[in-house]
Amino acid sequence: MVASHIDTDLDLTSPVDPDDPIFALHRGGKMAIAATVPLRDADDLSMSYTPGVAKVCEAIHTDPEVAHEYTWVSNTVAVVTDGTAVLGLGDIGPAASMPVMEGKAVLFKRFGGVDAIPIALDTTDVDEIVETVVRLAPSFGGINLEDISAPRCFEIEQRLIERLDIPVFHDDQHGTAVVTLAALYNAVRLTERDMSGLKVVISGAGAAGVAIMKILQAAGVRRIQVTDRSGVIHQGRTDLNSAKQWIADQSAEYARPGTIVDALNGADVYIGVSGGTTPEEGIAQMAPDAIIFAMANPTPEVHPDIAHRYARVVATGRSDYPNQINNVLVFPGIFRGALDVRATRITENMKLAAAQAIADLVGDDLHEGYVIPSPFDPRVAQAVSRAVTDSARREGVARRPY
Amino acid sequence: MVASHIDTDLDLTSPVDPDDPIFALHRGGKMAIAATVPLRDADDLSMSYTPGVAKVCEAIHTDPEVAHEYTWVSNTVAVVTDGTAVLGLGDIGPAASMPVMEGKAVLFKRFGGVDAIPIALDTTDVDEIVETVVRLAPSFGGINLEDISAPRCFEIEQRLIERLDIPVFHDDQHGTAVVTLAALYNAVRLTERDMSGLKVVISGAGAAGVAIMKILQAAGVRRIQVTDRSGVIHQGRTDLNSAKQWIADQSAEYARPGTIVDALNGADVYIGVSGGTTPEEGIAQMAPDAIIFAMANPTPEVHPDIAHRYARVVATGRSDYPNQINNVLVFPGIFRGALDVRATRITENMKLAAAQAIADLVGDDLHEGYVIPSPFDPRVAQAVSRAVTDSARREGVARRPY
Repeated sequence: MVASHIDTDLDLTSPVDPDDPIFALHRGGKMAIAATVPLRDADDLSMSYTPGVAKVCEAIHTDPEVAHEYTWVSNTVAVVTDGTAVLGLGDIGPAASMPVMEGKAVLFKRFGGVDAIPIALDTTDVDEIVETVVRLAPSFGGINLEDISAPRCFEIEQRLIERLDIPVFHDDQHGTAVVTLAALYNAVRLTERDMSGLKVVISGAGAAGVAIMKILQAAGVRRIQVTDRSGVIHQGRTDLNSAKQWIADQSAEYARPGTIVDALNGADVYIGVSGGTTPEEGIAQMAPDAIIFAMANPTPEVHPDIAHRYARVVATGRSDYPNQINNVLVFPGIFRGALDVRATRITENMKLAAAQAIADLVGDDLHEGYVIPSPFDPRVAQAVSRAVTDSARREGVARRPY
Repeated sequence: MVASHIDTDLDLTSPVDPDDPIFALHRGGKMAIAATVPLRDADDLSMSYTPGVAKVCEAIHTDPEVAHEYTWVSNTVAVVTDGTAVLGLGDIGPAASMPVMEGKAVLFKRFGGVDAIPIALDTTDVDEIVETVVRLAPSFGGINLEDISAPRCFEIEQRLIERLDIPVFHDDQHGTAVVTLAALYNAVRLTERDMSGLKVVISGAGAAGVAIMKILQAAGVRRIQVTDRSGVIHQGRTDLNSAKQWIADQSAEYARPGTIVDALNGADVYIGVSGGTTPEEGIAQMAPDAIIFAMANPTPEVHPDIAHRYARVVATGRSDYPNQINNVLVFPGIFRGALDVRATRITENMKLAAAQAIADLVGDDLHEGYVIPSPFDPRVAQAVSRAVTDSARREGVARRPY
């Protein structure tokens, strides 16, 4: 029986285990193009392609608005990465990032009905990424930035927002921030706190940490400390990049030099977006009825079993524990709504409204194990989309008023 | 009853006729993304997305070859345009070109099983187009250039071929050239000529005209004159761009100053890829058993009824006359074959072999009204693909030897 193995073309040097169901599933990729028009005969060809198609081209040339109704562009999003911060794997490059981008694209379709295209770029230069995406923009209705390392991601997103009139959204920042706030709204309600009184520690000062700090400030939280590998970020440190300097300035009144254990002393809320681990010693010093969101994936910064010893509400990024904080609750509905009203950008109010809409779906069913809906709750994308379209109209960034 | 029209939101200033079936067909675009993996529950998500997907990313990071089997990249082609030479409409820009690019993409899928993505670029600068496509390349298995004006298209294609190790193919050049040669092989067989003795006039010195000249030379044709709006292109002219200078140099021994009417005197073959009209006076002076391919679309350079007065074989680009010379016979099979063997480039031998393969399908059914198979002949893409894979293996440009 052993000999039969030798007869196969098993390649012992390959990193692929073909018997692993994950590799079997990924074989040939996870997505495909489908025509939505008939192509049975010459008449069909003459309608969808030459000569008939020329009529539609001419109409768009006369009135560019026509493109939004008569091409697929208005339902498409480019999922753009440079492969520098892929999951917890780090800078693995564009080719190796593609399975994640394809996964994101199929989630866009499954949960938002959005046609998303993975675009992995062979450059890590900020200027080149910006210029490339600007040149691609006529082909897409929106741009979802993905897995681009901090602090480069902040500048890339900001410059693209300034250059383009279609929505640009860095999901690692804002998707994470929105879904975190949604869960926090309900955890705060459950523990009978209010946002303005919260003491929050965010572990991790990358894309997600910065965006969570911003959205918590916008939601009324005033006391936030952010930690990185060197401890609490504060104005006295000399090792800060531009994003961390921003954190230091924003938290100047509250942040005190110290370790994460020091910061956690008396804190109400721990939010882990670091990919590292947080000592039990710190968790143990949190306030009564503590709230712990340990979102590193696949290994939470604090194991849920440990977190439960000290906290009333525990959430993670994992599907095999209660309270999964998952961006898929956010990005499909955000883009669904933005595309539906042809929003020129994703505003701060849209993000806050989306978080509230997600939180509200929990309603009276709220309890310690249910502060955030399931990714498969069919109401989620619709509620987020509605929050976005309503905000877009109120703020005057909707180009399609319906 | 007239009043009811006024009550609708009919926009008299819109270039769209919503009752036109072509606009009705194009509403919402012509294509969509489809997931090819199940996304029903949390287990599915954990396989296709985090945390499971990380295994596939890591495998590709360890061995980049893994990407070809475990992502969709190896079956994808970017259909790239800058919108400068769209159909006969000219420089209408990227947004207005999108219906053509979508049409091309769905033909790729319908006839070749290739997943093609329309990419319309917001730049017409040669350097910027080249750099942009190079940066996009990790996301695609091949690049189909489309509707980029001459002579810029030649430099863009050449530079991309040098920079990339995936197939780059400008269909307006080579697709047109291959299908023209296929039809010519059969027209020559029918009229009992041979390639080396042919006198050929090509009307039009754009992308298609240049590429047809090249492939006819490779197929053994020695006497070719090419005309543009100013008449025959020859070395004495001082108004030639780089591509036309190449034509003048290549045809130096045969081309003589004169009009297209002069050139057609005694010619065996007329090939129209100009978009203009050719005078009946010239056609009337062609050799007996003349061959006329008037391929401008939708209006052939010579109306088929007029062409038939003087020619034995008449072909056009239109589906409503016999002998439709249509690139769709070529590009799906070219890329199907190139992707199947992971060819590093599309060689001249592949193009010649593809033309011969298309011509051979006509076989003993050859007659004046059937020198080229129908686009819906199911044998075509397979025959072209086989020709490409066989050539790729013989020439050592196949990276997947099967």
